[in-house]
Amino acid sequence: MSELRRDPILRRWVIMAPERAADVVARRPDPPLPDRSTPCPFCPGNETLNPEEIAVACDGNGWVVRVTPDKRPLLRIEGDPDRRAAGMFDVMNAIGAHELVADTSEHERSWADFSPAHMARLLAVYRERTLDLRGDRRFRHVFVVKNHGAVWSNYVHAHSHVIATPFTPKRLEEELAGAREYHRMRERCVFCDQLAEELRVGRRIVARNGRFLAFAPFASEYPYETWIMPLEHAAEFGTVADAALEPLAEIMVETLARLRAALGDPPYSVALHAGPLAGDHPAEFHWHWELVPHLGHQLGMEWATGIYSNPVPPEDAARQLLAAGGASGRPAGAGAA
Amino acid sequence: MSELRRDPILRRWVIMAPERAADVVARRPDPPLPDRSTPCPFCPGNETLNPEEIAVACDGNGWVVRVTPDKRPLLRIEGDPDRRAAGMFDVMNAIGAHELVADTSEHERSWADFSPAHMARLLAVYRERTLDLRGDRRFRHVFVVKNHGAVWSNYVHAHSHVIATPFTPKRLEEELAGAREYHRMRERCVFCDQLAEELRVGRRIVARNGRFLAFAPFASEYPYETWIMPLEHAAEFGTVADAALEPLAEIMVETLARLRAALGDPPYSVALHAGPLAGDHPAEFHWHWELVPHLGHQLGMEWATGIYSNPVPPEDAARQLLAAGGASGRPAGAGAA
Repeated sequence: MSELRRDPILRRWVIMAPERAADVVARRPDPPLPDRSTPCPFCPGNETLNPEEIAVACDGNGWVVRVTPDKRPLLRIEGDPDRRAAGMFDVMNAIGAHELVADTSEHERSWADFSPAHMARLLAVYRERTLDLRGDRRFRHVFVVKNHGAVWSNYVHAHSHVIATPFTPKRLEEELAGAREYHRMRERCVFCDQLAEELRVGRRIVARNGRFLAFAPFASEYPYETWIMPLEHAAEFGTVADAALEPLAEIMVETLARLRAALGDPPYSVALHAGPLAGDHPAEFHWHWELVPHLGHQLGMEWATGIYSNPVPPEDAARQLLAAGGASGRPAGAGAA
Repeated sequence: MSELRRDPILRRWVIMAPERAADVVARRPDPPLPDRSTPCPFCPGNETLNPEEIAVACDGNGWVVRVTPDKRPLLRIEGDPDRRAAGMFDVMNAIGAHELVADTSEHERSWADFSPAHMARLLAVYRERTLDLRGDRRFRHVFVVKNHGAVWSNYVHAHSHVIATPFTPKRLEEELAGAREYHRMRERCVFCDQLAEELRVGRRIVARNGRFLAFAPFASEYPYETWIMPLEHAAEFGTVADAALEPLAEIMVETLARLRAALGDPPYSVALHAGPLAGDHPAEFHWHWELVPHLGHQLGMEWATGIYSNPVPPEDAARQLLAAGGASGRPAGAGAA
């Protein structure tokens, strides 16, 4: 049975998920070939493989985005945390939400190929799901994460995860703590200040439009790390206006298309930092998306010490991404640099 | 030029190392074949490739462990940090120490094959180097990290890194903060308490002797994560007695041999958490080694949120490692379980 165990030193909850042990392989240098004999659980016609529908977006021909419970969830929706001691340690039940999103009905279409209109529909679904999960008092955080082209994934069909946790994940806790501390010192949002600085300097901008900026952050931990952020302050993704969804969709597709063109369709992860629950800290946090490609790169020191060394300064990364073709197949105009 | 940039939100220093950009490869599913036409810089006879010797350990036939400066260092030994602002951001020069250790003179011998006597000599070299680097007032932390079998490594010959940083690395700062907080609450060392708990429960022990314990920690973030720790409290690795080096060497080789036997020689990283500099907090910290194999495993959620999900609970990991042959080629006796 899954359980959450708290590291007594790092004070971080770890999900023990023994039912996923089959995922661990000692060596898998080559991505496994997709098994074409198994029906794709994300394709129209195979809905019986994931019959329970949490949400759908449709067009005239049927669903175009579909949300179901993950069948091997890291966190289970039923039950209470039941926080308790285990010797000197702390444990709780692995409750939470783990929803699986079919990002499109088309089997081989990736985010970089999405039309802005379709991407906007997917974003509207994320907005709906994060708002709904915020209503559950057992949860402390909701986020969206998507992996593309990862060697550990079993599925080609574009899909993503909406996850709600009964604790604030470490990385997001640190982000919030840093933003709070900055606000305490200056009474300004650190993300707003960073946006102003990026607009002033210009050299790390990857794409922009009237509402959003995509940029390679100054202290990027990973090569080609890119953040996409609303220009106007807003703590929670759930409050994003309908009119902002398509500009956001455009800049996301544009950024992913540039990444693909510059680096040859690398595997990547993208995550929505949707903001703290319960409307706390509205002046301190600023929702955004973060994106990193997974490149062949040192792991040892990062694991051992938390020191990241980045061989591609964000100014170089932005230059390469700008030079590469975007969604429209052409480099960005002067307006983007 | 390398520089250190501080993330204004996560308050973490990132090493920008553009001269290492060649290390980034968008896709490298297969480990590169070692290029046998290039002379190995870690082999006896090729010392002119790394002529400057920082330290050596010798036997009757020549050196058996040799320490030289890294030729493409992440951090450079010359200069001052020169902390300064860059717009709203903070930067400093990438100073520090980055030493490269030839762990053995034998080209194809890995740590799991080392004799305890040789491993003890290597450990004595680490003790000497960490003590020496502690003397440099510019540095805040010293650690040892070694990667084995990594796809990103260019060299087969066993080697490791001794690194000193002008800041406390994030992961070690968190560890120290957690240990301090625990000590403030209970006036006991959290590592000592964890040792007592592991000895009481017994189910997560991988190896032990009169001075050291190897165990899979309760809230292991990674499958088969293993810590090796002195049973008696000691904040700093630099204080380890000569008489303790061989028992430590034995348990390290034993643990690595079990890992290799259980998982088929996986890539792994191992790191020495040598303790805070300047003798601070002697009651709060407890030096130890940490070891993780790099298995095919999810990266996306860990990157996005800092949530680790571990499909192999440490009790299962310890059982598998105990059942596998150790350095002596046989499973551990009842005394170890």
